[in-house]
Amino acid sequence: MDFTDLKLDLSSVKLDILRGIHQCSERGLFQSLKWLSELNFALEDVPVTPEELRPPVEDGGAEYSTFLLAKSYFNVKEYDRSAYFVRNCTTPKALFLHYYSQYLSIEKKKLDSMTDTNCPPDPTQNEELKTLCAELKNHFYDNKLDGFCSYLYGVVLKKLDLKSLAIDMLVKAVQEEPILWSAWFELGKMMGDKYEHVLSSLPDHWMRSFFTAHLYLEQLNNDEALNIYQKLSSEGFESSTYVMSQIALGFHNNRSMFLFQKPAVVFIKLVFDFRAC
Amino acid sequence: MDFTDLKLDLSSVKLDILRGIHQCSERGLFQSLKWLSELNFALEDVPVTPEELRPPVEDGGAEYSTFLLAKSYFNVKEYDRSAYFVRNCTTPKALFLHYYSQYLSIEKKKLDSMTDTNCPPDPTQNEELKTLCAELKNHFYDNKLDGFCSYLYGVVLKKLDLKSLAIDMLVKAVQEEPILWSAWFELGKMMGDKYEHVLSSLPDHWMRSFFTAHLYLEQLNNDEALNIYQKLSSEGFESSTYVMSQIALGFHNNRSMFLFQKPAVVFIKLVFDFRAC
Repeated sequence: MDFTDLKLDLSSVKLDILRGIHQCSERGLFQSLKWLSELNFALEDVPVTPEELRPPVEDGGAEYSTFLLAKSYFNVKEYDRSAYFVRNCTTPKALFLHYYSQYLSIEKKKLDSMTDTNCPPDPTQNEELKTLCAELKNHFYDNKLDGFCSYLYGVVLKKLDLKSLAIDMLVKAVQEEPILWSAWFELGKMMGDKYEHVLSSLPDHWMRSFFTAHLYLEQLNNDEALNIYQKLSSEGFESSTYVMSQIALGFHNNRSMFLFQKPAVVFIKLVFDFRAC
Repeated sequence: MDFTDLKLDLSSVKLDILRGIHQCSERGLFQSLKWLSELNFALEDVPVTPEELRPPVEDGGAEYSTFLLAKSYFNVKEYDRSAYFVRNCTTPKALFLHYYSQYLSIEKKKLDSMTDTNCPPDPTQNEELKTLCAELKNHFYDNKLDGFCSYLYGVVLKKLDLKSLAIDMLVKAVQEEPILWSAWFELGKMMGDKYEHVLSSLPDHWMRSFFTAHLYLEQLNNDEALNIYQKLSSEGFESSTYVMSQIALGFHNNRSMFLFQKPAVVFIKLVFDFRAC
């Protein structure tokens, strides 16, 4: 995909970001929330109307109270209790909270019961994680997993070393919720040469330019990465600390490659000097 | 204050609670949020219109983006960064986040630098805490502290062993934000016989009944506590796990006092038996 003629409609980008911030905040996805909030901060001068900022109207029914309660347990890291209370809820955000709380509970218990910090237990042997995976699988076949749940399913599959399935789920996640940076990020960590065909399935969304630049930088294709980041910068993200730091990283990588070459040059020079003696 | 003829308008109580949940969630006050969410859950059948559930319209200006960014740092416990970004903000919630982040950063550093877990450092010797206290004091004299900030100022004063001032601030906090359970709770921990005069300054709000019952229970005035809790239960909180557990605690305390008497009875009986021999 070519990003040289990338054009961003900043108003719609900002609304995407604000919607993402609201959704990630509700679901406790704090890393994506932070990433989106940094982008949003760079667009602080792009106008939005107060009405556009308003979150959608909530259904005030019993499920809303239950969700609030579970989320309040989630906030204080009482994950088992959080998962329990939303076990019968049907809204997508409550369903996500149910599974995400279970996942975080498993991770927390793993850390708590780790006797030797240098040797974490094998996640593929974790029975609780396998049970969670089976539950998510059932919901996947029932077509009940939205983008956020697909992301979580992808993360669980990755932990269980089911890489190819995990990539499929993460691709589904970014197709359905392109604003979810964590899904792109996890995908980026798993993409090698072997998975280049995946690129054709990625959505044609402005988030894809951030992902591609990130991927280039990970693979040390610094010039390609810098091209996209500089384009993003000129298209409205010039004050984004994230974009700035990625550009700095690109330049730094280029410089260190130059530095790596130096000892070789020095060595060749020494050889020639020696011969000349 | 007499609670025998306590009457609750559950619709307005529920709206108070929902407003509190929104405010505490924005400010990262997770313990109060949890407490309020449990009460709200007990009132799940009390109807509210979707429009009443909608949070107020946000001013979409630059300060909102800054607040979102600082809050996203707060969520991932990057407290210094969070405090820094809202340093020039003027909205009450941003001001609170600025000070609360500083406070949590001080607490976090204290834990990180603690070499001996059995011997925490003396908080009254903490220079950073004193600086924060001085800043809050200045804002207090400028009349810039709302209920939430007053609560925080009270907590800081308490840490610095300035008990009487701390109580004044906590009273100010519950007067201005009666929904803030943490402020009542801190107040409850500090109230002894010496501070009975404080009771006359407390607001005449339904939250006061929860506070009074809590205080009675702390002081082992179990019957008085049970009276209020049972009244609250019959007034609409019959399914509240909090109220139920407090009632259970009251009965448990009564029972244990009975149990405490038992060995004495046994002892006296033994003495009589011995004499009778």
